[in-house]
Amino acid sequence: MLTSIYLIAITAEAMSGALAAGRRNMDLFGVAVIAFFTALGGGTVRDILLGNFPVTWTQHPRYIYTTITAGLVTVLLARFMRHLNQLFLVLDAIGLVAFTVIGCNVALRLGYDTVVVVMAGITTGIFGGIIRDIMCNRTPQVLCHELYASVSLVVAILYLLLVHEGVSENITLLAAFSVGLLMRMVAIRWRVSLPVFSYSQASWE
Amino acid sequence: MLTSIYLIAITAEAMSGALAAGRRNMDLFGVAVIAFFTALGGGTVRDILLGNFPVTWTQHPRYIYTTITAGLVTVLLARFMRHLNQLFLVLDAIGLVAFTVIGCNVALRLGYDTVVVVMAGITTGIFGGIIRDIMCNRTPQVLCHELYASVSLVVAILYLLLVHEGVSENITLLAAFSVGLLMRMVAIRWRVSLPVFSYSQASWE
Amino acid sequence: MLTSIYLIAITAEAMSGALAAGRRNMDLFGVAVIAFFTALGGGTVRDILLGNFPVTWTQHPRYIYTTITAGLVTVLLARFMRHLNQLFLVLDAIGLVAFTVIGCNVALRLGYDTVVVVMAGITTGIFGGIIRDIMCNRTPQVLCHELYASVSLVVAILYLLLVHEGVSENITLLAAFSVGLLMRMVAIRWRVSLPVFSYSQASWE
Repeated sequence: MLTSIYLIAITAEAMSGALAAGRRNMDLFGVAVIAFFTALGGGTVRDILLGNFPVTWTQHPRYIYTTITAGLVTVLLARFMRHLNQLFLVLDAIGLVAFTVIGCNVALRLGYDTVVVVMAGITTGIFGGIIRDIMCNRTPQVLCHELYASVSLVVAILYLLLVHEGVSENITLLAAFSVGLLMRMVAIRWRVSLPVFSYSQASWE
Repeated sequence: MLTSIYLIAITAEAMSGALAAGRRNMDLFGVAVIAFFTALGGGTVRDILLGNFPVTWTQHPRYIYTTITAGLVTVLLARFMRHLNQLFLVLDAIGLVAFTVIGCNVALRLGYDTVVVVMAGITTGIFGGIIRDIMCNRTPQVLCHELYASVSLVVAILYLLLVHEGVSENITLLAAFSVGLLMRMVAIRWRVSLPVFSYSQASWE
Repeated sequence: MLTSIYLIAITAEAMSGALAAGRRNMDLFGVAVIAFFTALGGGTVRDILLGNFPVTWTQHPRYIYTTITAGLVTVLLARFMRHLNQLFLVLDAIGLVAFTVIGCNVALRLGYDTVVVVMAGITTGIFGGIIRDIMCNRTPQVLCHELYASVSLVVAILYLLLVHEGVSENITLLAAFSVGLLMRMVAIRWRVSLPVFSYSQASWE
């Protein structure tokens, strides 16, 4: 079931990437590249940081086709996208939780320290969006806005606690998705965010 | 022979990197860094994504010296560069084809799936330019402009088809370079490009 | 002793990252992410380029906690930072030398060619700052300004020469830190920099 959710998640992330590419007037090739990296870049960075070779998507051509197709289809659907805002906010939140859980699992399997496992989950969750924004020449939005990366952090910690307690996988996943989606929806609805750090002094470095 | 072409190619790419660094008023060290990554960054990303360690240039100090020297020499030659525009467009196109073919070969040798082989070729072909633009704080040009990345895609597919058909290496290379150079020259001459996706709606994410 | 210096160094680098995040109005999570990558990103890039897995910080949770804590504490101390400018310029210079020496050592141990060893030192020294600037959407400062990357280059070469001559480790480190700090202080005091390359011609690529 996590696989089905994963396919939905990478589709939603790829579409977000395609829209970002469109804001930079990229051509169809650029759209495909940004869609691919937005969807699969987080997992790629995780695999490289953990030395988990071969990188996951190189063994799953289906993921590659899915993200590139999703990116290109977005170009056709672009005019309808703003009517689907609500839907995509939900799909994006589902993706965030799914990526986080999957990332934690990869690091757990490789026997990394708990803090590294949490970081692997967060990396998988947010780095696709960071790469998207870097490649589109803007400051990574996930590091500035409403609770997003923080949701990934909470989900990762909750997931590890439940796994550690020996709770069954189904209940663990149910809890992770419930808490993650709820947090994210509350954050969007009431614009909840972490304190922002604003600094304007020129200084060393 | 592919090695000679490769050395010409990394020289041309390093010079393109040096000019980009000059547009950002970097110092000579910055010029060397950008020249190096423009020329060898595509192959580096490919090696990392494919888990192909040690990374190629770490075993070929000559490539390192070539790219850094080319970058620094560009500073001296800068005032003449605009007269050499036509020449460099050709060298750059040769580099694109050479990088693509070499990238495909590396992934083929490692036994990756066909779609990953094609992506390895394209990555080698275009990622140097993407890294150059990211490090110079601008939107990657190869994702926006006239046929460039697409040339890499066509060359990669053509190359794989001919290899698969058992065509001799010389003829395969000749075909790859002919088609790649022709496509690129036509694209530049008549400003052929893929459709551009422009999107300005604010939206989710 | 190099370990104590290293902890001071990553603390100073993390604080520089936090201030850069503050200039982009990031939230506390963004501050932590940028702090982490500024401090440990150089070593991470080095480990990945050298195929040195597992990546160092994944085996040293203490480094992770140190950098994230330093980043968050910076938010509280931000108003005092400009009074500490001089102090941080010194700590940053110490960090640059320590990172360079450590980076050279890692590559030496893995048996890489001399030029790759020097590059591993420089990469460890300057890439944290490059990643910080890329993630904060600005042109990497270390590639533009007063002698900084060049200090790393000189320290790396000096270090390798002394190691090669069989000079004792204590004297080697003393020499590396003396020369590195002196160069950096002179560069800041009299604004010494490498020649800057300015190029404004539109051109090929």
